[in-house]
Amino acid sequence: MRRTNKLKQIVAKQNKPSTFVIFNPANITYLSGFQGARALLVPEDGQSVLYVPGVNCEQAKEEAKDFAVELIERGENLMEKIAKQTSAKKLCVDTLSIENWRMLAKAVGGEENLELANDLIKGMRNIKSQQEIDLIREACKIADIGAQTAQKNIREGITQNQVAAEVEYAMRKAGSEGAAFDTIIASGYCCAYPHGSTFNRVIRNEDFVMVDVGATYKFYRSDLTRTFILGQLSEKQTRLYSLVKQAYQKAFETVKPKVAANEVDKAARKVVEDAGFGKFFVHNTGHGVGLEVHEGPTLSPESKDILEEGNVITIEPGVYLPAFCGVRIEDTVVVTKDGAEKLTRTPYLM
Amino acid sequence: MRRTNKLKQIVAKQNKPSTFVIFNPANITYLSGFQGARALLVPEDGQSVLYVPGVNCEQAKEEAKDFAVELIERGENLMEKIAKQTSAKKLCVDTLSIENWRMLAKAVGGEENLELANDLIKGMRNIKSQQEIDLIREACKIADIGAQTAQKNIREGITQNQVAAEVEYAMRKAGSEGAAFDTIIASGYCCAYPHGSTFNRVIRNEDFVMVDVGATYKFYRSDLTRTFILGQLSEKQTRLYSLVKQAYQKAFETVKPKVAANEVDKAARKVVEDAGFGKFFVHNTGHGVGLEVHEGPTLSPESKDILEEGNVITIEPGVYLPAFCGVRIEDTVVVTKDGAEKLTRTPYLM
Repeated sequence: MRRTNKLKQIVAKQNKPSTFVIFNPANITYLSGFQGARALLVPEDGQSVLYVPGVNCEQAKEEAKDFAVELIERGENLMEKIAKQTSAKKLCVDTLSIENWRMLAKAVGGEENLELANDLIKGMRNIKSQQEIDLIREACKIADIGAQTAQKNIREGITQNQVAAEVEYAMRKAGSEGAAFDTIIASGYCCAYPHGSTFNRVIRNEDFVMVDVGATYKFYRSDLTRTFILGQLSEKQTRLYSLVKQAYQKAFETVKPKVAANEVDKAARKVVEDAGFGKFFVHNTGHGVGLEVHEGPTLSPESKDILEEGNVITIEPGVYLPAFCGVRIEDTVVVTKDGAEKLTRTPYLM
Repeated sequence: MRRTNKLKQIVAKQNKPSTFVIFNPANITYLSGFQGARALLVPEDGQSVLYVPGVNCEQAKEEAKDFAVELIERGENLMEKIAKQTSAKKLCVDTLSIENWRMLAKAVGGEENLELANDLIKGMRNIKSQQEIDLIREACKIADIGAQTAQKNIREGITQNQVAAEVEYAMRKAGSEGAAFDTIIASGYCCAYPHGSTFNRVIRNEDFVMVDVGATYKFYRSDLTRTFILGQLSEKQTRLYSLVKQAYQKAFETVKPKVAANEVDKAARKVVEDAGFGKFFVHNTGHGVGLEVHEGPTLSPESKDILEEGNVITIEPGVYLPAFCGVRIEDTVVVTKDGAEKLTRTPYLM
C-alpha cells in the first residue's frame, strides 16, 4: 500500500486534523520516494501534492509520477500557497521552525488550526518494510567493504585522513552514493573522543584505530564501527576491548520484539559499570538507522521506545579514556521475530 | 576580536535582549570554533557557555578553552538548564524548532521573553575575515583538483558514480575533510536536472557532463561547477555553452561592493532571457559559501542583500533543456574592494 494512504489511515484513527503537511526532508522522501521537495500535502481525500522549487521541478515530474507536482514560483510564499490550496480548516504538520510555524499559522487563521504530529510519521519510519531492509542490507555490505579497506590500509605513518580517503573511495566503487555521515578515523589518544577524527593525526604502532563508517544506497544508510589495532594488543588494550565486546554481546542478546529499548542499553551499560568504567561510556547504546543515520528507536537509559520486528538499529557501546584511548564496537542490526540479525559483518578483533 | 564579543557589541546597539542563545550548529561553530555543542549562551557580561552532550564533552574541554563547557546530563532538559543558568529575563535566540521554542518559552516564563534575532549572526557570517577567506581559498583549490580529476576520468562507458568516486578520492587526498555536499556528476539528459546525479547513468560520447563538486577544509566549504564534453562540442552544444558562459561573465563583471545582489542575478538572467531561454534558467544566480555551502548573501531576483567586501559567493548561471541536456558554470568568488576575485580556477571549455 502506498505510504501516503497508510498515513491517511493512521490519521483517520486519531483525533487529529485529517490533512497533513510534511516539511521534514527525510519524511517527504519516505512518503513520496522523491528528494528535493520543500513540502508534501497529504489531503484526507485525493492526490497528494509535492511542492517543489524550480530547480528540481522537472526531476519531480519525472520521478514522482503518483503525485501532483506544484512549482513554487519565484517570490511565492510557500506557507500561503499551501493554505490556499487546501480546503481543510485545520492541518497536521510534522515539524517546522518557529519562523515558518508563525507564517503557516497566519496563513491558516491562527495557531489553533495547526497541530504537531511528527510522531505518526516517526512511528511509520521506525518499522522498516522488507524492501527497506534490503536497501539497508546493501548499504551495510558497502560499509563492511569500507571498514575492511580501513583495516588493510592502517600502517605506521599514514594519516587518519588518508585512511578516510581509501575507505570512502572503496565504498563509492562498491556502489555507495556518498558517505552516510562524516567518516571517523580516530587513532591513539583521538579514540578517546567518540567523534575524534577532526584531528588529522599520523597513525603509530600500537595505536587503537577507531573506524566509524557508513554508506548510502538508494537514500538508505548504514552505520558500522570497528576498533582496529596496529600491531599487537597490549594486556591493557585486550582488557578494554574485551570489556566493550562483552557489553556489545549482552546488548545484542537482549534485542527482540517487545523488549524496552532502555533494557538493551542497560544490558550493555551494566557490563561496563560493573567493571568500574561506567563514567567512560559517554553515549547511548544505539539508535535507529534508515533514511537518516540517526532516527528512532533510541537505545538510551531514558528511552521509552519498545522494540518491534522490523526496527533497524545500531548497537554500539564504547569506553573512552581521556588522553589515552577508546574502543567502540558497532553493528547495524535488524530486529527479527526472535532476536536480531546483524546486517554489518566485519570481523571483530576477538 | 573574539566573535562572541563582536556579537555582544552588535546586540548592545540594538533594542534587543542582551543575552543571546545560539542553537544553529554552524552559528555555534562560527562563534566558538567548536563543532559538537547543542547550544551556546552568550551573556551580556562574562564568559560564554557551550552546552555539550557527554559524547563530545571531553573534546569540547580540549578544543574550546575560551569557553565554559557545560555537560548536558542524561535526561536533563536543555531548555530548562539554559533558563536556570542565566539571570537574564529576556533572551535573543537565533533559530529553533517550534517544539523547542515552546519548551524554552515555558522555561523563561513565556514567549514574550524570547526574541528571534538570527539576522545578526547571519550578517556577521556574510562578511568573511581574511582567515576565513584563506580557508575557503584552500577548499576551492581542492575543489579544482576534484573537477580536474573528473575531466581526466570522463570516458565512454564510465558511470557517473565511478567519476564521483575518483573526484572525492582526489579531493580527500588533497586534504578535503569530506565532500562539501553530495557530489553531482550528471551526464547527457541527466544534465537537464540541476541536481541530476541520483541516476547512475553510463557516460556516452558527445555527452555534456556536469560536475558540481566541493571540498571541506577546517569546517569551510567550496562550490564549483564545470560542464565538460566527451568528444567535440556540436554546434548546438557550443551555442548553449557559450550562452551560459556569457551569462556567467556578465554576472562576474557586475560584482562589487554596494551592488545589489539582485543586480548580479539580473545581469546573468538578462543574457539568458534575451536569447529566449529564460524559462530554462530554473535557479538563482548564486549564494554565499562559508561554514555552510548555502548561506548569505543570496543572488536571486527577490534578494534584498547588498554585496560587501568580504562576501564569498558563487556565480552559477545554468540552462536546462528537459530530456535533452543542460549547462551550468559556477565559481566561488570573493568580493574585493574593486570587484570579484575567483577562488576556483578550473579552466572553462571556452
